[in-house]
Parts: sequence; structure tokens; C-alpha cells
Amino acid sequence: MIEQNKNTVEVCFTPAAFPLFYNPKAIVVVIDVLRATSAICTALHYGVKSIIPVASVEEAIVYKNKGFISAAERNGELVEGFEIGNSPFSYMDEKFKGKEIVLSTTNGTQAIEVAKEADTIVIGSFLNKNKMTEYLLSQNKNVILLCAGWKNKFNMEDTLFAGAIVADLLQNEKFYTPCDSAMASLTLYKQAENDLYAFLEQSSHRRRLEKLQLEKDIRYCLTPNTAPVIPIYKNGKISI
Amino acid sequence: MIEQNKNTVEVCFTPAAFPLFYNPKAIVVVIDVLRATSAICTALHYGVKSIIPVASVEEAIVYKNKGFISAAERNGELVEGFEIGNSPFSYMDEKFKGKEIVLSTTNGTQAIEVAKEADTIVIGSFLNKNKMTEYLLSQNKNVILLCAGWKNKFNMEDTLFAGAIVADLLQNEKFYTPCDSAMASLTLYKQAENDLYAFLEQSSHRRRLEKLQLEKDIRYCLTPNTAPVIPIYKNGKISI
Repeated sequence: MIEQNKNTVEVCFTPAAFPLFYNPKAIVVVIDVLRATSAICTALHYGVKSIIPVASVEEAIVYKNKGFISAAERNGELVEGFEIGNSPFSYMDEKFKGKEIVLSTTNGTQAIEVAKEADTIVIGSFLNKNKMTEYLLSQNKNVILLCAGWKNKFNMEDTLFAGAIVADLLQNEKFYTPCDSAMASLTLYKQAENDLYAFLEQSSHRRRLEKLQLEKDIRYCLTPNTAPVIPIYKNGKISI
Repeated sequence: MIEQNKNTVEVCFTPAAFPLFYNPKAIVVVIDVLRATSAICTALHYGVKSIIPVASVEEAIVYKNKGFISAAERNGELVEGFEIGNSPFSYMDEKFKGKEIVLSTTNGTQAIEVAKEADTIVIGSFLNKNKMTEYLLSQNKNVILLCAGWKNKFNMEDTLFAGAIVADLLQNEKFYTPCDSAMASLTLYKQAENDLYAFLEQSSHRRRLEKLQLEKDIRYCLTPNTAPVIPIYKNGKISI
């Protein structure tokens, strides 16, 4: 199959760079491994009805005052006055089953915000890796893997997950990549895949979260396929 | 030595992201391996007096009309009406010795433009790799490796050179990195260093240049230490 008939897979390392990749017909996979998109996959897998992502804490407060269950995290920590932050474990609670939860996080919800106009936005994390690959292979569309990064800088853990998906898609003859960042992500993932946790030892955000004693969260977020769902963003809400 | 007393080395993948890294006291190394910064190192090593980098072709035309030797490249090709483009071999000519040359390129000269306010700007390429490491170790300042990229997207060859410098600097106890992009560059360079040319086979710009039959240029630009000079940008001109 020649390149012209294949679908592309590209990796955008930061929300700020997204306009350079913009393609209204592509599927955008939003990635914030530590921890927003891992939390969203977990929540929906455990029965939460939908997540309403909002970019600012102020918006989250407006929803909270209307009586919504509200979650907000900044710089790895729960924002004061909110019930939950972005630890995936918080979302496993029975009491959230069937409920809507409003969520604002440092990077993940901003990434969803910049991708808003895309044809299809889905939420990716190691927790739904194989399910995501299956889904993307079934859609016959170009794919943009949008890393949330850290305050618009490149980050390692989101890039590794992007590389995992690139590795899977390029094994299928339907896909090719014209994109150096996809090749870089793939190379990094291949180096890391046998022990993601150890590979991330030097990563800035793992160190940031370790200071906050979140090792259990990090290990969970790096475990593939424990929440095999495809969260789709539509009309302001994420659901499966 | 604890981290607080060390100098940082960071990697900025694109000119658009540079404001996130901005630190007025840092040394900025501008990198456009294929081919602007390789051409600049070559020119100055071969006796060109200085290079005047300008961001736009229009500015280059103004200088040209004033009688300056002028070089301009866009998308890998010589711009019509200009004497030279950005092939390093063009700059080895005896007739340019002691002369000033005005240069505008697709990415490299834009990267210099965004870094203009930095305390010190130097020009890096594989051609001056070891000399650059020696220089940076001698300065006792923080270092930002600024990749020119391709139209504000990440590119592989600039990242590999950044990784080579990160590898060199982190061997010295004076330096550490707080930055995931530096760790990614280092990991990619370690994968590539035994055969940079082969590693870049999938890179988008190598393929772009191959279509233009520039294999000889690519091989030259990936050869370390053939132009051991430190080009410094000051008051609008680059010289050694």
C-alpha cells in the first residue's frame, strides 16, 4: 500500500503546538498520563456517567456552586474546597456511580480545550492502551496524539504513551507517519517499555509527584489495560 | 555537589516554545543541523568575516540591493535571485574570505531571531560539537539548547545534536537537567550516535533533502568536529 492511501499518525507534544497539526477530519487522542486522562478512564470504567472537563478552577467553582460533584487539581495537588483531585483511586468510589463529575486539571483539561473543534476527541492512557489501538484501527481516519505535557513543555510520560500507540498503529499497514515527533516517541517507548516506572525515574513530573507521595498513583497509571474503555468527548462531556 | 549549585542544561524543541524557557542569563545555543547552523560554522571556519542573519527573504533582498553578498534558502532550495543557499559547501569558496554574508533560511535564522534578547547566543552543529562542549563548560552559566525544528515542529536531527551536548555536559558535575526534553534528547542521541545517518533515515527533513539530491550535504552536516569554531551572535552579526 503506498503512503498516499494510508492514514497518518502524528504526535503533538504540547497543547500550544496543536494548531500546527490541526486537521478537522482527524481523531485527536488527548493524553495526560499523570494523572488526568488516567483518572477519566478509571472513572468511566468504574461507572461514573460522564466527566465534564473545564479548563479553569473558576469554571469548576461555578459548577460546584450549582451542586455538581467537582474535582480540581493544580500542580499535582487537590485544590482547596474541592471534593476530589485527579488521583484515579478517588474515582473508584461506589457513590460516584451513574453521576456526572466536573473536572479541572493543570494540563489535561487544557489539552481537551484546544482540541475542542476536532471531529472526534478521545481520551487515552496506559489504562486503555489496547482498547485505544483497536478503536483507532477500526476508524480509518488520521490520528493526532495530543500530549498534555507540563504547562506547554514536553513531558516524558505522555510521550511514552504516544509512542506505545505509534508502535501499535505502525504494525498495521493502514498507518504511516510523516512526523519526526512520532518517530521520537516510538524510539523512546521502545527504550522504556520493559520498565516504564524505572525509565521515568528522571522525569520531572514523576519527581514532582513523588514529593507528594503519589508512588501508588504513578504505578497504577503506568499499568496497561486495567480500564478498557473509550472515553469520547462530545458536547462538553466525556462518556463511554 | 547539590543541584542548587549546578548549572542547568535544557532543550527547547522549537522557536515557538522558547518564551517558556527564557532566562536572560543563560547561554542559548541555536541549532539547525540541516543546514543553516552547519553552513554558518563552515563559513566562519573557512574565513568568512561574519554572517548577518535575517529572518525574512525581504530583508535579505534589501541587503542584496545594497551590494551585500546574500544567501537565502526556503524549503531546502536556493531562493531565486540569490547567489547562495544554505549548503555548507557553498561557503568554502576562497572569494568569500574576509567578507560579510547576509543569510536567511527557513528555520535557522528565525530561531536566532527569537533568541535575540538572550545574554549570549552561539551557533551549534555537529561540525563544532566538541569545541561547543568545551566552551559551555568554561562559561559557568545555564544553557538552553534551542532547536530550530521545521516550521515550529519538532525535528529529529536538531534534537540529536542537542542530545549530544546534553550527554557531554551531564558527564561534568557542574551540570544537571530539570527538563524532560533534555532527557529525551539524550536517550535519542544514545540510540543514534553509532550511525547518525542511518538513524535519520526516517526523519522528515532528511527525506525532504534527499529528494533534492543533497546526500553529500547531509553526510557532511553529520560529521563531528570538522569546523571547530564558536560562532557568537552580537549586534546583528555572527562571527568568531
